Amino acid sequence: MPKPVLTILAGSRPVTGLEQLEALADVRLVSGSAELAAALPGTEILYLWDYFAGGLRENWSRADSLTWIHVPAAGVDRLLFPELAASDVTVTNARGIFDAAMAEYALAGILHFAKNFPAASRNQRDRRWQYFPTANLAGSRALIAGTGSIGRTTSRLLRAVGIEADGLGRTARAGDADFAAIHASQDFASVAGNYDFVILAAPLTPDTRHLLNQAVLSAMRPTAVLVNMGRGELADQEALTRALEAKDIAGAVLDVTDPEPLPASDPLWELDNVLITPHLSGDSQTHLPALAAQFEANLTDYLQGRTPANVVDKGLGFVASGA
Amino acid sequence: MPKPVLTILAGSRPVTGLEQLEALADVRLVSGSAELAAALPGTEILYLWDYFAGGLRENWSRADSLTWIHVPAAGVDRLLFPELAASDVTVTNARGIFDAAMAEYALAGILHFAKNFPAASRNQRDRRWQYFPTANLAGSRALIAGTGSIGRTTSRLLRAVGIEADGLGRTARAGDADFAAIHASQDFASVAGNYDFVILAAPLTPDTRHLLNQAVLSAMRPTAVLVNMGRGELADQEALTRALEAKDIAGAVLDVTDPEPLPASDPLWELDNVLITPHLSGDSQTHLPALAAQFEANLTDYLQGRTPANVVDKGLGFVASGA
Repeated sequence: MPKPVLTILAGSRPVTGLEQLEALADVRLVSGSAELAAALPGTEILYLWDYFAGGLRENWSRADSLTWIHVPAAGVDRLLFPELAASDVTVTNARGIFDAAMAEYALAGILHFAKNFPAASRNQRDRRWQYFPTANLAGSRALIAGTGSIGRTTSRLLRAVGIEADGLGRTARAGDADFAAIHASQDFASVAGNYDFVILAAPLTPDTRHLLNQAVLSAMRPTAVLVNMGRGELADQEALTRALEAKDIAGAVLDVTDPEPLPASDPLWELDNVLITPHLSGDSQTHLPALAAQFEANLTDYLQGRTPANVVDKGLGFVASGA
Repeated sequence: MPKPVLTILAGSRPVTGLEQLEALADVRLVSGSAELAAALPGTEILYLWDYFAGGLRENWSRADSLTWIHVPAAGVDRLLFPELAASDVTVTNARGIFDAAMAEYALAGILHFAKNFPAASRNQRDRRWQYFPTANLAGSRALIAGTGSIGRTTSRLLRAVGIEADGLGRTARAGDADFAAIHASQDFASVAGNYDFVILAAPLTPDTRHLLNQAVLSAMRPTAVLVNMGRGELADQEALTRALEAKDIAGAVLDVTDPEPLPASDPLWELDNVLITPHLSGDSQTHLPALAAQFEANLTDYLQGRTPANVVDKGLGFVASGA
């Protein structure tokens, strides 16, 4: 049986586990959109980082043999352009790989503000030994927007340290194993005032764009802290910036912004109640080998005629199976 | 029955729960050492913050009726001067009140470095969106010096988030409920290289002074992070400063220093792999009412002829009972 053509579009990133993939497929390794145009004809399987989605759309007519695209990321919002959504091409993502790191990132952001480390840094800059208030997490409440594997892992970690965690999903539900309660997204503004921490971990879809809007921000507690580790566009960033400048909410930890990279001129950089990280909350010392092992297992399944794991529902915009 | 004289030396701090105490005792509220000299004769019970220990020693000959001193803190190292140690006066502390906040502080410090928030802050200062490496806690290892209630609560919290936690105590022990293993303090240097995080939560005694010395620092991993929330004198601060300057260890979170306040001229302030907080790791939104309730319960016991809780072993320098 001839090996299928697997094109890998990894940009400047090293591809972990390439040798194992070359044993299973005829690998074409390309580093940008121009090379992709040449490599697409005959490509059956495409492995690409989602920030190359634009290059794929430009060259979509050349995808004459494509059956499967694997994205080594959780979000596929940039990839699901109409031509791909309407096609028979299967899309899979890296569901599960980023869960633990992102849960820890959310907890790190929560503790950063609960223990008032921003005040510590300000004092330290001035070499000043000066008391400031801090808070215990025990008994505090978090609302996690996104009830997929990232939101659930985050909830379990927050609950392990004594935080009461509710979810925000498409529909309100009770009796969930991972959340004390799940509220409907449309009720976000009416429940936001009950929480000390609001965490955005939802996929970006037409329904979730600007999920965190002015009405939600106005409803949040002045002591509340936001953690956005989903997509920058989940928040109305202009309204968020105003709320942070006015201290309508206490602070924000932002791993994602709109746009990315965040321009040097953006006012968010200047705010000392904001901590910005460059879209790395899911990464760790283990995520690259884990992504490689996950894709290799998926490829093995595919070659043996089985459906690969973590198939994205292209209508919904995320993996709908499981939780 | 006449009410006993209770002298409270609280400096400029408000005394939470004063009305309840006045119902139980004849309260003398004093704000400094000079007033203490006048109030001591006839005082049966003394409630004082430990930084007033010097004033008590100066006026020790005036303590003609003293039977009990309660310190609303965990450490009593400054209080146990020889005259008091040799006397029949009972000393109690606030064991338990600070445990949860200190455990959270340790976790906050660990996550601060694991998620590389110092790099985020540096980038933010320069308005620079630039990737940096981060690490997951799962599978990492912590060594907690101090196997009292603070060390145990810390271990339980770290284990709840997936860190393997060992203890460091006076003697090596296996089979402990809260620690995977307990090593003996004398073996600190020989085991220190096995840990990602070293946490100092031991009482300061002649045995633990400079527990973290040059030999231990040399044995620690270059990626290791120190959290000191016990006493500044638990570490050889000169050696620690050199190790941090040379990046022999990755970083430190210091809630306690030697001396306190840390002088503005101290080189620790300048190091961007150090986070300094002004001796507040045990504090929270609830610690003042909790301290008041604990002392009121203890006072009630005392008035009814029972031994108050959390009696310090003046030979050991800490509460030896329980764990």
